[in-house]
Amino acid sequence: MTDTPDPEILVARLLERDALASLLGVELIEAELGRCVLRMTVRPEHLNGYGGGHGGILFSLADIAFAMASNSRGHIAVGINASISYFVGTKEGDVLYARAVELNRSRRLGSYRIDVERADGTLVAAFTGTVHITEKPVA
Amino acid sequence: MTDTPDPEILVARLLERDALASLLGVELIEAELGRCVLRMTVRPEHLNGYGGGHGGILFSLADIAFAMASNSRGHIAVGINASISYFVGTKEGDVLYARAVELNRSRRLGSYRIDVERADGTLVAAFTGTVHITEKPVA
Amino acid sequence: MTDTPDPEILVARLLERDALASLLGVELIEAELGRCVLRMTVRPEHLNGYGGGHGGILFSLADIAFAMASNSRGHIAVGINASISYFVGTKEGDVLYARAVELNRSRRLGSYRIDVERADGTLVAAFTGTVHITEKPVA
Amino acid sequence: MTDTPDPEILVARLLERDALASLLGVELIEAELGRCVLRMTVRPEHLNGYGGGHGGILFSLADIAFAMASNSRGHIAVGINASISYFVGTKEGDVLYARAVELNRSRRLGSYRIDVERADGTLVAAFTGTVHITEKPVA
Repeated sequence: MTDTPDPEILVARLLERDALASLLGVELIEAELGRCVLRMTVRPEHLNGYGGGHGGILFSLADIAFAMASNSRGHIAVGINASISYFVGTKEGDVLYARAVELNRSRRLGSYRIDVERADGTLVAAFTGTVHITEKPVA
Repeated sequence: MTDTPDPEILVARLLERDALASLLGVELIEAELGRCVLRMTVRPEHLNGYGGGHGGILFSLADIAFAMASNSRGHIAVGINASISYFVGTKEGDVLYARAVELNRSRRLGSYRIDVERADGTLVAAFTGTVHITEKPVA
Repeated sequence: MTDTPDPEILVARLLERDALASLLGVELIEAELGRCVLRMTVRPEHLNGYGGGHGGILFSLADIAFAMASNSRGHIAVGINASISYFVGTKEGDVLYARAVELNRSRRLGSYRIDVERADGTLVAAFTGTVHITEKPVA
Repeated sequence: MTDTPDPEILVARLLERDALASLLGVELIEAELGRCVLRMTVRPEHLNGYGGGHGGILFSLADIAFAMASNSRGHIAVGINASISYFVGTKEGDVLYARAVELNRSRRLGSYRIDVERADGTLVAAFTGTVHITEKPVA
């Protein structure tokens, strides 16, 4: 049974091709079917006008985890919508983890929950997103 | 009456200090109290693993417009949460506009709607966000 | 061309069969393809523990408008997700209007924005929702 | 130390005063500080135009759990916004549980996650909501 690629290999390949992940410095920690953990350190270029970590950066980190988890089953999945709540601020040097889990998956739709945490376990932001699942295999 | 800064000048200054806006190439088109229009062109480094514009880029553009509109009244406003729906894909070279309007503003809370459109007027994504308004003036 | 039913007739029929709409007292004001306006008066049984209109009632009114607008084109549409922001409180006797517009519609997905307003035009709540469009005709 | 009421007693009292909870038949199963579990059975008057449980009913159940959990600490909390994703349909007679947990709570803001499950443990809907916390005690 070689028709389903190993999710860890598949996600590593997808992440490598994701230009925004490279731009932001997002690393893969682990991936399974429907789940993954990513890591990113808040850099000077990630700050907003007040010197804190930009909300767009937290969203992007969660959004990349969302893409990885939803594509990990081998079919191309396209984001339909997402929402995020921000709980605590971040600052330069903070190490952030995005942990994605699958809430539900049917033939055409999938929903994922991504918690963004600091290295000390504090919940920084909570993200929920839904994808449309296509019939195309992830190349 | 010099205590309320001109929103166009204030937003231009805030945008200049926003490192993510610089990284992404976001430009200010216009700003008024509670409203603004920003522009960004989809670049090679904004693409996802399939060669389309990254959802995180669309969110970031809308999120920056959200920050500019919600801070334009002169008090520091901090994002509480946001949601986005994606309608059509984007590709390298697409010129995108984010148009932010104020839905509601009380002493402590404000809500903003941001439409992200292509130059031809097609609605690419719809964003809604809520801020907590602090008592601190925008410096 | 009799294969597409008149949206006003179709929506009136759907609303009549919607038990929650009857329970809440929701009335149809107008319907077109992808749009509708509904009306509801806040009743004593719609109040929360503090004597104000319940958030669940505002959501339900918007959600019914969402269902009507998304089904108005003649195919059964099923809600995937929705978000709502509340701006001002309501009280017994307030007359509320829900105005639904179509933001986007593809073969399989549709997104709708519903503004809930008081009779004086004040924006009470803003709702956005997405449906999955099935191939089954609305009966 | 009698100034903080017992959360189970406080929530029971609040739920009793919630007219929508009575209308829908929502029962309290348990409540702690920042958490609660509610139960509701899908009734004939909760159905949509297609004979399935109405999305507005699922939202209302989750929304009531959100109100109970966010008020359980003894200060009046007012909903700012909420989002819900629907995963599987429900039908008449389904027994539903809403389980609310606190994601974050600061002096002025609180965020809650509510999972709506069938009695067999299937996740039916996922809800996230944010409140503004006032200085007024729950009466």
